[in-house]
Amino acid sequence: MGEKTIKDIARRCGVGVSTVSRAINNHPDINPKTREKIMKVIEETGFIPNNSARNLKRTDAKCIAVLVKGIANPFFGSMIQIIEDEAQRSGYALVLRHVEARGDEVDAALELIKEKRLSGIVFLGGRFAHSEEKTGKLNVPFTFSAIGVEMSGRAGGRKFSSIAVDDRLESEKMTEYLLSLGHRRIAFITEKPEEAIGRKRIDGYRQAFKKRGLAVDEGMIRYVQDDLDHFSMENGYITAQKLLRSGEDPTAIYAASDLLAIGACRAVLEAGRKIPDDISVAGYDGIDLGEYYHPKLTTIKQPAEEMALKTIRLLLDVIEGRQENQQILLPAQLVVRESTGKSRTP
Amino acid sequence: MGEKTIKDIARRCGVGVSTVSRAINNHPDINPKTREKIMKVIEETGFIPNNSARNLKRTDAKCIAVLVKGIANPFFGSMIQIIEDEAQRSGYALVLRHVEARGDEVDAALELIKEKRLSGIVFLGGRFAHSEEKTGKLNVPFTFSAIGVEMSGRAGGRKFSSIAVDDRLESEKMTEYLLSLGHRRIAFITEKPEEAIGRKRIDGYRQAFKKRGLAVDEGMIRYVQDDLDHFSMENGYITAQKLLRSGEDPTAIYAASDLLAIGACRAVLEAGRKIPDDISVAGYDGIDLGEYYHPKLTTIKQPAEEMALKTIRLLLDVIEGRQENQQILLPAQLVVRESTGKSRTP
Repeated sequence: MGEKTIKDIARRCGVGVSTVSRAINNHPDINPKTREKIMKVIEETGFIPNNSARNLKRTDAKCIAVLVKGIANPFFGSMIQIIEDEAQRSGYALVLRHVEARGDEVDAALELIKEKRLSGIVFLGGRFAHSEEKTGKLNVPFTFSAIGVEMSGRAGGRKFSSIAVDDRLESEKMTEYLLSLGHRRIAFITEKPEEAIGRKRIDGYRQAFKKRGLAVDEGMIRYVQDDLDHFSMENGYITAQKLLRSGEDPTAIYAASDLLAIGACRAVLEAGRKIPDDISVAGYDGIDLGEYYHPKLTTIKQPAEEMALKTIRLLLDVIEGRQENQQILLPAQLVVRESTGKSRTP
Repeated sequence: MGEKTIKDIARRCGVGVSTVSRAINNHPDINPKTREKIMKVIEETGFIPNNSARNLKRTDAKCIAVLVKGIANPFFGSMIQIIEDEAQRSGYALVLRHVEARGDEVDAALELIKEKRLSGIVFLGGRFAHSEEKTGKLNVPFTFSAIGVEMSGRAGGRKFSSIAVDDRLESEKMTEYLLSLGHRRIAFITEKPEEAIGRKRIDGYRQAFKKRGLAVDEGMIRYVQDDLDHFSMENGYITAQKLLRSGEDPTAIYAASDLLAIGACRAVLEAGRKIPDDISVAGYDGIDLGEYYHPKLTTIKQPAEEMALKTIRLLLDVIEGRQENQQILLPAQLVVRESTGKSRTP
């Protein structure tokens, strides 16, 4: 099948080119049924609206806001790129706003809504729990991505989507892997249980010990500094340094992000210890960097691309009325590389 | 001095609170002189407009577009964060669009202008040369950041700003440093001379050899793949791997970005060579990662924060008529860490 033009679409739908253009641009002056029909044909034929079509009417493009906690994290960087591409293909521009480590992303979204007309919101990273009273004020569809959020207030009938891996399960998987190597003094560097990621990954860590009938040494759970990016190399470095100087003697360090793990590696190496001979180090996320680091980093690889694609496609579907909100959990993968090995001091 | 409120500013200027609000929001319904006076007082007192002030009038915020080539590069990540903060403080939202490795950022900007009302544009990364005919179509102020651009067509009276380090000089500095360690077979991994960064850094590399009366071995200049991010770890890895398998025998590899250098490190290590004992590796940019990599990476540290701040402040000044366009060069710094050492095979 050759490449379709806007004229082909118009002919096939029995409408004019300008009507197709209005459908593509989600223009208010179009019968919703007609639009639906046109969009279906477009989807079936794989037609990609080009500029000339999109620019027949030069209205302001619709906007999707992406609020990111930890924009410097390459894990989010690659996701933003995919979300942007996909939004752009559908005629939406991306407004990006980052949220400070201590900031509240829902507050930031409420502020942004006052400033700009938005069609929808993606939250990348951030808090675990939000009050339903506050999120109720968000008058556009929104999706939490890469965070398994929970809401305070009554359950059921969620007015938002979320797409994440099962952080509890994946964290348990990593901890169990380290236990299986003979490690018992496994330090865990993470954010506090109040945070989105913190709670579930700590639960998973505890669960792995529990399943083996082992007690968790509470001194081995180390929280990152609250005033820095929670998942940054710097925070991993500082937190691991404190751990190693505290007199605790871990044989493995598991960090709740790859960047934290890389920071921890530096602290381990600077303390004159070898990885993994003296101390194993493992991360979480599966960013490219882990493959390039020396030693290559053992990690839980999240399906970042799939997560990003599902996030934006589902949000666009909800915005355009093609789907209801959904809560999606995707599987992640334990990737064993060079930074972990058997415990020599069991 | 206590914290100033919008009322203090209004009192001091002898105007009403709503006038101050209009000035902050760059509302058309205000006398330019009055606005200038108010903004001056705001600047003097260090008053930061808060939400309630900014939201007295809920108009759509003005937009600055940021077009990034290589959004996954943490060097740009940190700059985007600073640009966004500063734009937001001045009441502008940020629209982000990334440009494919092979894409033309000016074309992307022209397309975006058709879709959205923009107040100004920042180009982060990208090509060295653009036709003045094409950039002439950009009907809003624009700034090239972290690229020393040149225009085809007649010189003088530039209609845009640029802020960058002197890539030619800094590249010469790095090459001279490697020469001073006794290296002669110094491979250079970079993008092609047609690209913004490529040309100047290659010129600097050649200049350092020339100053010592040494000939450049053309087989030592290695271009990255065009279809991948030019400055990515992957491209550095692939390009260094080809180099090492080609029979060339470099004692040092200088890469035109830190990410390229980290990719090259992996190829060197996989070839069973030690860094820096067998091969020295140096990068360019000065991203945080270089400090956390093992071995820590020798690099040219660009003043990313200062560059980002100057970029957005100058653009806002031009947009709001407070300054003319400028071409600014900032100094960078050679940072010697662990990845480079004396040549053992001079």
